[in-house]
This record gives sequence, structure tokens and C-alpha cells, in this order.
Amino acid sequence: MTTSLRLGLLGFGTVGKSLVRLVEAEAPRLARQFDIDVRFVALASRGLASRPADGLPAGARVTEDLLAVATAPDVDVVVELLGGLTPAGELLVAALGAGKSVVTANKALLAARGAELARLARDQRVTLAFEASVAGGIPILRAVRESFAGDRIDAVYGILNGTSNFVLTGMARTSRPYGGMLAEAQALGYAEADPAADVEGADAACKLALLARLAFGQEVPLEAVRTEGITRLRPIDFVYAGMLGRTPRQLGTARRLSDGRLLLSVRTHLVSNDSVLARIDGPFNAVQVSTASGGDFVFTGRGAGGDPTATAVLADIVEIARRGSGSGVPPFGTEAPVPFAPGGLADSVAPFYLRFVVADRPGILAELASVLARHDVNVDAVLQTPWSEKAALPFVVTLEPVDEERLGRALVEVAALPFHVEAPLVLPMNP
Amino acid sequence: MTTSLRLGLLGFGTVGKSLVRLVEAEAPRLARQFDIDVRFVALASRGLASRPADGLPAGARVTEDLLAVATAPDVDVVVELLGGLTPAGELLVAALGAGKSVVTANKALLAARGAELARLARDQRVTLAFEASVAGGIPILRAVRESFAGDRIDAVYGILNGTSNFVLTGMARTSRPYGGMLAEAQALGYAEADPAADVEGADAACKLALLARLAFGQEVPLEAVRTEGITRLRPIDFVYAGMLGRTPRQLGTARRLSDGRLLLSVRTHLVSNDSVLARIDGPFNAVQVSTASGGDFVFTGRGAGGDPTATAVLADIVEIARRGSGSGVPPFGTEAPVPFAPGGLADSVAPFYLRFVVADRPGILAELASVLARHDVNVDAVLQTPWSEKAALPFVVTLEPVDEERLGRALVEVAALPFHVEAPLVLPMNP
Repeated sequence: MTTSLRLGLLGFGTVGKSLVRLVEAEAPRLARQFDIDVRFVALASRGLASRPADGLPAGARVTEDLLAVATAPDVDVVVELLGGLTPAGELLVAALGAGKSVVTANKALLAARGAELARLARDQRVTLAFEASVAGGIPILRAVRESFAGDRIDAVYGILNGTSNFVLTGMARTSRPYGGMLAEAQALGYAEADPAADVEGADAACKLALLARLAFGQEVPLEAVRTEGITRLRPIDFVYAGMLGRTPRQLGTARRLSDGRLLLSVRTHLVSNDSVLARIDGPFNAVQVSTASGGDFVFTGRGAGGDPTATAVLADIVEIARRGSGSGVPPFGTEAPVPFAPGGLADSVAPFYLRFVVADRPGILAELASVLARHDVNVDAVLQTPWSEKAALPFVVTLEPVDEERLGRALVEVAALPFHVEAPLVLPMNP
Repeated sequence: MTTSLRLGLLGFGTVGKSLVRLVEAEAPRLARQFDIDVRFVALASRGLASRPADGLPAGARVTEDLLAVATAPDVDVVVELLGGLTPAGELLVAALGAGKSVVTANKALLAARGAELARLARDQRVTLAFEASVAGGIPILRAVRESFAGDRIDAVYGILNGTSNFVLTGMARTSRPYGGMLAEAQALGYAEADPAADVEGADAACKLALLARLAFGQEVPLEAVRTEGITRLRPIDFVYAGMLGRTPRQLGTARRLSDGRLLLSVRTHLVSNDSVLARIDGPFNAVQVSTASGGDFVFTGRGAGGDPTATAVLADIVEIARRGSGSGVPPFGTEAPVPFAPGGLADSVAPFYLRFVVADRPGILAELASVLARHDVNVDAVLQTPWSEKAALPFVVTLEPVDEERLGRALVEVAALPFHVEAPLVLPMNP
């Protein structure tokens, strides 16, 4: 017997347009393979009245009234592709309250109000699905919540923001400065006009919080994620990283520490050129899942863009059609909450890269070395290459593996030394 | 309300022992996170009477009578870890017939009788789950059947046999000959006493046939997979591959050709050192899924071994507990069958590597070049390094991209030339 699913679409931007095309293209196959009939009955998008839109779904009514579509009696599943906290949040509360299942790609909303929405979905016995919210087309949430259900996940980490990765891999390839690469990313459509959420790490932090909730089964507030952007990287850092057989990558990390606390960070790491992560170029994403029994698994693919994101949305819709409404994710936070580790890699013993930009005067290295030695922080190597800016001399000190709590105390003293032209850049050299 | 699932285990080898340990370790977490109670009530293994076994599941009855466990009234799910066609096939027919759901890692049985077993499961409204049968702990089957349901899969390919990959990466690292690396793989437990199924490609061919069924939704007989082993690779091939910026990998490939036919092969490719596949070392597996809208996705992880395989088995068990029995895979073969392309990469235009071992005499290259030219096959380069075996001179001819059908006609004539000491080795240089 054919299962019919009538969709209401909120938002008609890049992903929405891709989704409408995709549903049209794949409907015959979905009917044959799964005996399901999926179609749009309503679409709401602000501004549709003022500017005509191509590619609207055939046979669907089109309106600017978002709430009317979110609660329409003939809609089974509300697909939310508006993004942002408002009005998406209230619309989804209304949709779930009206007994609709919801499919969304809205990572910011889920990171902020996911637990509330999941509870509401469970109470209403409908599905809240959001595979598209993390890593675009990579089916990482389904893997974490189902495929690794039989194993204990100890860590999830990866390249979660395609814009940052595009900028970093572009800087590595071309030796161009950060600003120039960001402008190119914007010109190519890989970065928003306001790129702050991407390059400052907030976008990756939202995704990491969602991943961590499913991986560890507990509530993870966004504030628990220590977040640093990529904006301070300079071309010289890529030169030094290359000398170390490494390359910069923005990684989100969620890890269970040996004392049971959870550690959550988004920051730039220098990863080994031999690692799979170093091969993830441009707008691609990669997520590694480390489990107690099965070992490490890596998933890579397109992390953003209309088409990959739309395929993840449609996969969620197909699952609702096949499994029935209410078959969604387990509620966030079934495990007893454990505390979060402050300040990043507190218990992780990692080698570190410290890049200094200093006013050239004698004795700098001696002062630096003596502060580090006093804190039992061991220097591995000092790197310095010729550099064009005479007034500001960038050099690098690499450290033997050290825990970041101890390193942090040393760096407070180092920062107080009088020769800095800019604050030191501190990057873990792992994995 | 707690969902209870009583398991009957057939077979108590490496994976079975890992599974019993894993279920014991993870039971408290499964109870908390998913409110399910999973335990073994019966275990059957031949030879248990003659040799005592450690690590038997607490509270389960133990017997040598496999059929009694497969059909026991108090068993909800039969876990089959015997391997092989008999008696596993008849036992699973009996178990499904008795209304048990079945979880199995038996790729050979599924490749041979999967369609029949899937039909039986569907008729009985029970689940037939087999995530562990392909690529060990990598959740590739779930991804293919669910996560990419909203997209059209055009190709699936990857490193599907850990033993072959261990031997190939070991030969690359150590320059040791094939026989020596195989012996090391056997000593380390990565290869069976009889390694034929691994190194000749039959194991990878079974996995590829299963992947292809789920990816393309049609019946795929094992005979449709063109299968070549890794046994003819010599240390000199790794030297030449290195000169070309490539390295040998055994890849299973299932691809939809432009004319609609399916192409299925297991063979050694020379893959680019820049590709993710070249980074997959030792016993690891990797699977790439190429989709029409979402692009390429790669999944990597441990492809074999007791623990990774056991986690995949337990994930299937957890899914049955959470979804209910009968929620399994779609039946194989809902799409209308399309023909299979004979002979490998018939429509794929790839550059090729031809390695010849010849008796040293003048004029060989001229004869070879003239045959290739007559078939419009263009030579890209000729490689020859000094070599210790005086009587047999191995050299390499690389070809510009050519379709293999045309190449095949040329190679028939080449093979008839009188100077060969062994048959030419023909490897595609992609991806």
C-alpha cells in the first residue's frame, strides 16, 4: 500500500530550491523502490509576493504566511529551511504542537532549543529529524544515533565548517593572506556576506553541540564549547606548519576525558600531512568517530551547498514515510549529565605550536625559555624563517607533549613579557 | 516500557566471543539510553562438548544442536556467526520460518541466497539484518539503504578486503614479495590459513554484490562480478607505481554506466597517492558512494576483526529492539533488472598500466608499440628500472585514457607476441 506524505515547505532559498528539484527528480524512483508518494502541498516564503520565483513546486499553494503552512491541516511533514532562531523556533513549536513531523537543517535553532523541540516531538508522537543540520550530505547523525548504538563513543571530531576549510586549504595552496582567501570564498558563494559565524567558529560549535548530544546522550549547551576562529592565521603559519609536516585545519572536538568529563572545542589544529583530515580540501567536511570497541571511523563528503543538504533532508523525509511518524531520534539527554571540562584540551597531552610576533631585540628567546622551563614545559624546536616585515619578527616554538592546563599557566606569564607585537598564537599539533 | 530481546547465538568464534563481551559491557548503557534489555538465552556451537570454552554468556544454555537454537521458542533474534553456505543457509531458513528475526555477518550466504532469505523475512514480517557482512564496523549498508535514499547512487566502490589491503600496503612499505607479506598477515591473524577467498577477490566480490543490490535496488548475482586477485603483484610493480605517484589497492567497483548497464569488478587499481584511498592502510576498509546530487562520500574504518564486526551486529540488534521486528531492509530487487556489463571497465575511459616480463631481445618495444598503434591505443610513457633477475626483464608501458574494450582487443594480439616470460599485468590507473 502506497504511503503518501504531504510536505509543507518553509523557506525557499538555495536548499529549498534544490529540494524541490530533487523531490521532482527522485519521486518515480521513491515510488518504485519504497512505494511512497512524497509531494509538496504548500510553500511559504517571505518576499515571494514582491519578487517572482522560478522552480516552485508544481501544484503547491504558495503564500507568505509561514504559520499557515506550519499548521496547515493537509500538511503531514513541515520542512523548515529558514535558518536562524526567529521565527523558525515558534513556527516549529506550532508545527509540532499541531501534530506535524518536522524536518529541519537549522543547526543554530537545534543547538539553542533542540531539547525542548525533541521533548515536544516525543510528547506529540511525531518525528523531529535534522540530519541535514550537521555536515550537509554526510549521514553522520544517523550513524551516531543508530550505527554506533552498539558501541560506546569516546570522541567525535572533525572538519565541520566548509567555509573555514575552504579558506585554510586555499591559504595553504596559494600562500595568500586570510582576507584575500575569504573574499574569494565569498565570490564563489562558499561564504556568506557576513562570514563571522563560519570563520569565528560559531557555526561549527552548533554542529559540534548537536553531534555531542547524540554521541554522549546528554544535554550539551552551546556555551560548553570553547570556540576560536581561524582569523588569526597568517601565511607564515602555513610555512612553519609545512616545515613540521603539518597543515592547519579547523576541528570541532567532543571527547570523553578519563575522569568522565566532556571536553568540547572548536579551534585550529595543525594536523599531520599523513592524516585523512589533511586530504579534506575546500568545502568538504569530515567527521571521525572513535569508539571503545570498533576503533576509529571517518566519514567525508560535501558538508554544505544546496544539493548535498537537500539530499539529507529528503533522506529524513523518506525515513518518516517508511518508518512512520514518531520514529525519530531519542530525546536528548537520557544519560545523567556529566560536567564539562573548561578551557579546551585540559587533560589532553598534545604537542603545541606557539607562534610569536615580536619586536626584534636581544634576549627574547632566553626570557621565553626561562618562563616555559619554570612551568616544566619542554621546548621541542625553535623555527625562524626570513620574513619581509622588518618591524615584526614571527618565529615559532614547538613544545613536547604537554597538558594544556599547565601550558595555560605558563602562557599567562609569557603574555606579560614586554616584547609582543601581537598575542601569541597557540595551536595543538594533533591528531 | 522496557523492550526485551532474547538472543540465540549460532557460532562461537572470534566475532561471537567479541559479541558476548560487548553485550555484557554495553547492556547497562543500552538500558539507560534506549530502555532495552538484550541478553543471550541460548548458544550453539559445534565442538563445544569436546573443548571447553571461556567467555560463554552468563545464564544462557549451551548446546551443539544448532537447529534447536535457531528455532527455540524463547529466542526472539537468531544471531548467525557460523559463516559459509552450509549449514548456515538451512538454519536461517528454519529460523525465519519459525518467525525469528535474524542478524548475520555471513556475506557468502547473503551473496548466494540473500534474495530468497529477504523474501522469507518479508513474508514472515521479521527482520533480516546484515550490516556486519560488509566492511565490518563501517555502517555502509545502513547509509546506502537509508541515508542516500533521497539521492540516486551512481557508483559504490572501495577497499573491501582487509587482508588484501594489509598485504598490498605491507609490500609498499617493506618492498617484500607477496608470499612473505601474506605469511606475515597469517601470523598476525589478518589472513585465514586458506587465504584464497581474500587474495583471489572472492570475499570482496560477495561484499560488492551485497552493496550493489542495496545501492541499485536490483538482484546482483555473484557471477556478474569480474574478479581478479592480488597474487600477481611483484615488488617491482610498487616501484613503478611510485614513479607514477600511485600505489596499488584492491578495489571493488559497482557502477551505473551511461547506457544504463551495471558494471561490477574486483581488481587491483593503481590509485593516486593524493586520494583518500591511498591513505587507507593495513586492515582498514574504505567505501566511496557517488551520488547524483550530493556528490562523493567516503566512509573508512576497521573492516574486519572480532570487535568491529561485533559492534555492527549489536547495532543491528539494537535497531530491531527499537524499531520492532519486520523493520528490516527493503527486499532486494525492487528495480527492474538491467544488464551487466561484461569484462570490467568496458565503458570507462581510464589510463592503464601494462607490466611486461620479457626475455631480453632487441625490437620488443617496436613490436608492442606497433600492435597498440594499430588499435588506436596511445602510449603515454615507457618505464624501465634496473632489475636483478637477468633472465626476465620487467618493464612498464602506461597508456593514455582508453576504453577497456578496445584495449582488450589490442591485448589479445599483444599476448600472442613470442617474447613474454609471464602474461602481462594490466591495471587501471584510477581513481
